[in-house]
Amino acid sequence: MAVQALIFDVFGTLLDWHGGVAREAERLLRPLRPDLDGSAFARAWRARYQPGMEPIRQGTRPFADLDALHAESLEDLLAAEGLAGIPSETKRALVLAWHRLDAWPDVAEGLARLRPHFLLAPCSNAHIRLAIAHARRNRLPWDAVLGAELARDYKPKPAVYLAAAQALRLAPEEVVMVAAHSSDLAAAAACGLGTAHIARPDETGPGGGEAGPSVPVDVSAADLGDLARQLGC
Amino acid sequence: MAVQALIFDVFGTLLDWHGGVAREAERLLRPLRPDLDGSAFARAWRARYQPGMEPIRQGTRPFADLDALHAESLEDLLAAEGLAGIPSETKRALVLAWHRLDAWPDVAEGLARLRPHFLLAPCSNAHIRLAIAHARRNRLPWDAVLGAELARDYKPKPAVYLAAAQALRLAPEEVVMVAAHSSDLAAAAACGLGTAHIARPDETGPGGGEAGPSVPVDVSAADLGDLARQLGC
Repeated sequence: MAVQALIFDVFGTLLDWHGGVAREAERLLRPLRPDLDGSAFARAWRARYQPGMEPIRQGTRPFADLDALHAESLEDLLAAEGLAGIPSETKRALVLAWHRLDAWPDVAEGLARLRPHFLLAPCSNAHIRLAIAHARRNRLPWDAVLGAELARDYKPKPAVYLAAAQALRLAPEEVVMVAAHSSDLAAAAACGLGTAHIARPDETGPGGGEAGPSVPVDVSAADLGDLARQLGC
Repeated sequence: MAVQALIFDVFGTLLDWHGGVAREAERLLRPLRPDLDGSAFARAWRARYQPGMEPIRQGTRPFADLDALHAESLEDLLAAEGLAGIPSETKRALVLAWHRLDAWPDVAEGLARLRPHFLLAPCSNAHIRLAIAHARRNRLPWDAVLGAELARDYKPKPAVYLAAAQALRLAPEEVVMVAAHSSDLAAAAACGLGTAHIARPDETGPGGGEAGPSVPVDVSAADLGDLARQLGC
C-alpha cells in the first residue's frame, strides 16, 4: 500500500527541546542562581516527563495537557533545586519555554521537500496550542495538528497513532511515523504504521541521543533531507 | 478582551460550494443526462444537508462525517432524479466534489493579511481530511483544523464553537467566528464568541445568499479584504 502521509514526533525529532529549555532556564533563573546549568536543568525536567503522563495512559487520571504536566513537574524540580519560592510569573515563563523551541537545521528544507508528496502532520504528545506555537515559530507546514489532544491519551498508547491515521482517513499502512526514538517507532509499528527513524545523536547534548534505531524500521535516515531523498522526493 | 483568533465557516463563506458541486455534477452526470442542471443539482443536494446532521445533533446517531452524510443524501437525490442506478464509482466521485471546491477570489489575499495578526482555523462541519483537501487546493494557511470532527458534533451545537476555543486555549471572547450565515453567527455569539459576517450575496447563484447579517454582529464585511481592513490588518 502506498504511503500517503508522514506523521512526526516533535520533541527531539524536529525541535531541539534540550537546547531551547536550557536557554530559557538560564535566561530566567541565572538572575536568581548565577551558576545554573541550563542543560542539566533541561535534562532533569525531561526526566520527569514520562512519569507525569503515566497515570493518564493508565486511565487513572483524565487527560491533562503538557502545559499542566510541565507545571507540575517544574514544581518538583524547583523543590529539588531549592528554588521552590521563585515568582509564579517565572514559573509560568519556564513552562512556556516548551513553546519556544527551535527546529534542527535540516527541518525546514526537509519538510518543504516532503510536502508536495505526502500529507504532513505532527503526532506528538504536545497539545494543539503548543503544536501551533512550534509551527508558527519554525514555519512547520502542517496539514493538520494530530497527536495526543485529538486522542486524549499519550504516546506510546496505540490510540494516539490510530487516531492520527483515522483523522486522515488512511489505513495505518498508508501512514509513516517519523521519530528519533525507537520506542515511539516500535509502538507505531505495532499499530501497523510504517516507520522512519531520524538520527539525533546529540538530542540531549553530545552523545545523548539515538544515532540509529534499536528496533527494525522501514527507513533509517541521517536527517530529514536524507529521509526525503530515500522517499524519492 | 483582545481578539487572538479567527475561526471560519468554510462552505459558502470561503469556498464556492454551489459552483464547485454544479461543475462536478455536470462533468460526471451529463454523459448520462445531457440536460442536467448542475446548479439545481447542487442546490437540491445542499437542501438535504441540514436534515442529515440533525440526528447527530440530537444524539440519536453517533457522529458520522460529511462524506458519509453526503453519500447518503446523494442516494436520495439520485433516486428523486431517476439516476439511482449510476455506477458506484460515479457516486463516489460526486461525493468527492465537496473536496474539490474553489475559494472565492478574495480569500487567499484576505487570509494572508489576517495571518500575522491572528491564529486562523476552520470551524466548519467538514471533517479533518475534507478540510485538508480544501486547504491544499486553495492554500488556506490554517494553524490547525478545528470544527465538527474535533467536537464530534455539528454546528450550530455549542460544543463545536466551544471545542474550537478550548483547543486554542482561549476564552470564547478572544475568538471571532467568521461566517456568511447569520444562524452560524447567532450560535457562536450565544457561546460568547465574537462575530464577523461576510457578505456572499450570490452564494447559491444570483441573489441566493446573505448580502448582510440578519442578527447583531461585531463586524459586517463585504469580503475578507474588508474584514482585514476593519480589524486593522
